[in-house]
Formats: sequence, structure tokens, C-alpha cells
Amino acid sequence: MSSTTTKTDYAISMASVQAAAERINGFAHRTPVLTCHALETIAAGESGAPKRLFFKNLQKVGAFKYRGALNAVKKYLQEKKEKGEKTDTTFVTHSSGNHGQALALAARDANCKAVIVMPNNSPSVKQNAVRGYGAEVKLCAPTNEAREKAANEVVEATGARFVHPSNDPDVMNGQGTVALELLEQAKEYGVELDAIIVPIGGAGLCSGVAMAAKSVQPGIKVFAVEPTGAADAYNSFQKHELMGHTGPINTVADGLRTTLGDNNWPVVRDLVDEILLVSDDEIVSAMKLIWERMKLVVEPSGAVATAAVLAHKLPAGITNVGVVFSGGNVDLEKLPWAQKA
Amino acid sequence: MSSTTTKTDYAISMASVQAAAERINGFAHRTPVLTCHALETIAAGESGAPKRLFFKNLQKVGAFKYRGALNAVKKYLQEKKEKGEKTDTTFVTHSSGNHGQALALAARDANCKAVIVMPNNSPSVKQNAVRGYGAEVKLCAPTNEAREKAANEVVEATGARFVHPSNDPDVMNGQGTVALELLEQAKEYGVELDAIIVPIGGAGLCSGVAMAAKSVQPGIKVFAVEPTGAADAYNSFQKHELMGHTGPINTVADGLRTTLGDNNWPVVRDLVDEILLVSDDEIVSAMKLIWERMKLVVEPSGAVATAAVLAHKLPAGITNVGVVFSGGNVDLEKLPWAQKA
Repeated sequence: MSSTTTKTDYAISMASVQAAAERINGFAHRTPVLTCHALETIAAGESGAPKRLFFKNLQKVGAFKYRGALNAVKKYLQEKKEKGEKTDTTFVTHSSGNHGQALALAARDANCKAVIVMPNNSPSVKQNAVRGYGAEVKLCAPTNEAREKAANEVVEATGARFVHPSNDPDVMNGQGTVALELLEQAKEYGVELDAIIVPIGGAGLCSGVAMAAKSVQPGIKVFAVEPTGAADAYNSFQKHELMGHTGPINTVADGLRTTLGDNNWPVVRDLVDEILLVSDDEIVSAMKLIWERMKLVVEPSGAVATAAVLAHKLPAGITNVGVVFSGGNVDLEKLPWAQKA
Repeated sequence: MSSTTTKTDYAISMASVQAAAERINGFAHRTPVLTCHALETIAAGESGAPKRLFFKNLQKVGAFKYRGALNAVKKYLQEKKEKGEKTDTTFVTHSSGNHGQALALAARDANCKAVIVMPNNSPSVKQNAVRGYGAEVKLCAPTNEAREKAANEVVEATGARFVHPSNDPDVMNGQGTVALELLEQAKEYGVELDAIIVPIGGAGLCSGVAMAAKSVQPGIKVFAVEPTGAADAYNSFQKHELMGHTGPINTVADGLRTTLGDNNWPVVRDLVDEILLVSDDEIVSAMKLIWERMKLVVEPSGAVATAAVLAHKLPAGITNVGVVFSGGNVDLEKLPWAQKA
């Protein structure tokens, strides 16, 4: 944890994560915690230092992203209602991944429209999944500028509520509910977690989890894991200063190619203990192992935290670990191990 | 249900399934029930007749088979202990699939040895999974005679307890616990199931589920689903007489290529309402949909019940359906949709 340049007016707080938990309770699944002896054995390694791993995964649309999107939608409509305003809101975001599907489903369940801006090179299986949740897909050129412009156009034309995939405080709060559940569920196993380990991309999940975990249990360690080929969070953390990507982005973990936002960064800077890096090979082999042994379809971005644990990147003395999976949005026709062959 | 040739001395009963449930409680997972709106929409079809699907899946070693193997191991050792006999039993079975892994794990957790007889052409990934659970793999020629001979040799040499993958009453009882949980969990959703639908191969699962479900809720329908290319149960059911395969076996669902045993058959004959057939195309497309939308790695044999529901093979008037998945033992390098391309 940082001792300098501490910003205390974070975009989120324990109270706002708890409010999110109450808001989404009964709508998002309380997801089960999974354990896997085979993966624990590998994580222990030759040293035999015991590891108990508590995996947190599975949610509507197959990703934790539903928590944040649902919290954003419900909170916005709740506030509208309290003000006596109409609740026929359109929700808009740019996302080729899980957040797009999550917002589509959350909006549909609230009888609202959703428009999801996607790059025109995103696979049809991902576009169809979004349409399957009843949302309109708006295609744009595959650049940051184009997607922001396209989302802004929707906002200007319809007064839509824009829900950023990671930098929106309501999204961060929703993702933080993962940590509340995980800590509670570990206790049901009679275990106090030493650490929680999560993927970091835009850091909506990471910042929400860090805020919630450190509030509930101040001594817990929070580790974030990033692919070597998209190490903006790692670099920012080392320099103690928010940086974008400084080199070319090259990783199989497509969901983690984004950069941190200004709401995420202060929380990550102050509440995350360490950012660990994993290679694409480590990611793909962890992903395959999860499919084989846990029977779960996890995308590369979702496997990075597990990859770090299996490659023994956690510091010594960490035994009881909550491991967060992040999503299962994969093109089954193009699996990374098949492409390598 | 049959009204003629009713055999009432079944190999299992409601009491024996309940005893199994108590025996494995706390050792096998009480698996979560999963729901999936996308699959319910497809199951409803153009008629729009609503379907609520409650999926039951996931277990240690990735398959329901663990329930039966665990029940057999625990019951045998319990009885030995009560008689004051040594409990250093070896357990043996022949299985290239989930039952082999299940027995390996159940034996290891009881500090006992397991020997799993596997055909010498079984993929190394499956052999390694069995060895990963600490069992000895004994290879044999890929014929029924060779595997029975190999298993018998182990029994004769070591006094091992042979646990048949489907025809062993303790196995049938263990698999029946799936139905007890499913009925209970549907109630937690405020729903009384109209039907349970399960895959049928050797019928260990099917007979256990039928016995338990009809005992708890006599009006419930039990449907079994078999691949068109291995339709021995279907043919037996039509002729009302236990038959083996009458033609060549040709199905992607390798776990369902076996035939019914004499303990399974009377229960299936009297307590199953209908046996439905699905084609390999229907199986593979259901399997892929489960991977894509539910993020679960299910093998072809595990997808047949879902395939029947999605292909609208259930009779009209069935709304609330418990759907049993059966396993996730797939070779990720050889996925059926990749092979077709």
C-alpha cells in the first residue's frame, strides 16, 4: 500500500459496495465457490507448501461483469423513480465482450433498451450473443476514438445513460460484491482468506474487490494479475503514476487489453498489494487446465489469476487464496491450443 | 409404466437411495442447480410453450459418477469395519471414462488402492486423469471380454471389490441422489418438477433417478435419452425385453455405448415413462450451446438430455423440467465441431 499521494476521495467506498450488494441481491446469482484438488496440488508445487484455492466464477452471461452492469442499471432507474421521472431509459456502452452482454441483459430485465457499440471486426458469435439478450448492436471502426464517438452519438440522440465497462463507480461497486461473497463463503469453509487474486484490465473488478476486501478484512492481501503483453497497470503501479500502454499490445487475453481509468487508478494504487505478470503461455495452459479439470469454459482473460497461482507467483506464506475467474466469452471455433498446433 | 411382468424385487429402493444420500453427504458436493434463459427460449420453440429448465451438473471429477463410486466405496468399508475386518481393500473397475476417475478418487480419499482397467486405445489424457487420482491403470485389448478378464484377474489376485460402472446397486443408489437433490432444489425455486430427463447408457443414473424420483413424487415423469446410434435401451423398452445392441454402434456419445445390465433393466422397464432418441447432430449442437451459453464443459454423453429438450422431443404439457448433465470428460484437442470442419 502506498504511503504517499494518498487520495482519500475514492470514487467508491465500502458503503457503496454494500449498497450494490443489497441492490443486486436476488437478481444476480450468489455464485458458488468451487474447489479443485488437482489445481491445488499444482499450485503447491514441488515445495509442497499447501495451497487452498477457493474459485469464484459463473454468473449470468457467464461473467462477473453482470454484477456491475446490473448495479448501474438498477441504481439509475431507482433514482429516476425517486425523482418521479420516466424510467424508459436507454443504456449504452462500448464493449466487444462480457460487459456488452451484461448491460444488454440487465437493461432487458428492467424493460429498457440497450445499445452496444462493438468494433466491426468482432466475431459474429459475440455480436449474436449481445443481440440474443435483446440489445441493438452498433458497429464502428475498431479504434478507441470511433467507439467513444459512436457511444456519444447514442447519448446525444436519446439521452441514454452511458455505462463505462470499468471506470463507472456503479460498475466498480457491483464488481466489488464478488469479494463480499467470497470472504463470507470462505468462512463457511472455516477458512480466513490470506489473499484474493483477480485479473486486472480496466480494473473495475480489481478496484471494487480491493475496496471491499480491505474494508472487511484490513489485513488481507489483494493481488492483481496482468498479461505481460498489456502491462499498463503493472507499469503504472511501478511508477506510481497512471500510465496508458507504452508499447504494442500483444496478448491472448483480449479482455485485458484496455487501460485503467481515473476512478480505478487511485484505488488500485493504494489498496492493491502487488501486480503480478503472466505470459500468454502461462495463461493458455491455466485456461486449458480449468477446462479439463474444473469443466468450466473460461476465456484467457478469466484465467490469468489462476495462471499466476499455478505458476507459483504468489509470495511465500500465502495459503488460503480466493481466486476470481472473469468470463467465458470464447470463440469455440478458434481455441488457443488448436491455433498453436 | 408397465402393468405386466412387474418385478418388485428391484436391486434398489427408495430406502437404499436415501441411505446413499446420507452416506455421501458432506463428501460429494451438493451440486448447484443452474438455469439458462437462452436455452429455455430455444426449448420453448416457435410455439412459445414455456419451459423452465433446472440443470444439474458438476461434481467432483466432473461427473455424477462420483456419487455412485463414493457410495460403493464407503458402504463396503463401513460393512468391513462393522465386521471387524481389515479395510485395506483394493477397488477395481473397467472404465475409460468418468467412472474410472470417480472410483480412483473415492478409493484414494478412503486411503485404499484402486486399479482401473482401460482399453489400450484410450486417449492418454484420460489415462493420465485416472493416474492423477492415484490409481493404477491396467491396459487391456479394447473388447468386452478382455476388460472383464483383466478386472477378474485383479479380483482373484488381490480380493479386490469390483465396482461395475452401472449395474452395481450401490452405484445405482449413489446416482439416485441426484434426483433427491434436484427435487428439493426445484422446490427452493418454488417449482414442482413435471419431469426429470436423463441420459441413458448403462442406466446406473437412469435407474437410480427413476427410483428416487417416483418414490418422492409418484406423478413425476422420467424421460431417458439415448443416441440413435446406440439404441439398445430404446429397443429393449419397445420390445419390453432386455436386449443388447442389435446393430453396429455409431455415436459421438462414447459414454452411452454400453448396454443395460440385469439390475438396471427392471427399474427402467417399470419406472421410466419414455425413452427418447437424439441424433449425433442434435447432441453436438446442444453440447456446443451449453459450452457457449452456460460456460460448462460437457461431453457428448452429458448433452443428450439437453439435446432432446432443445429439439422439442418432450411431449406437450411438460413445463418444469429437471435436466441432468452427465460428465465433462472430453479431449480438448479433438472437439466434435472442429473435426466436422
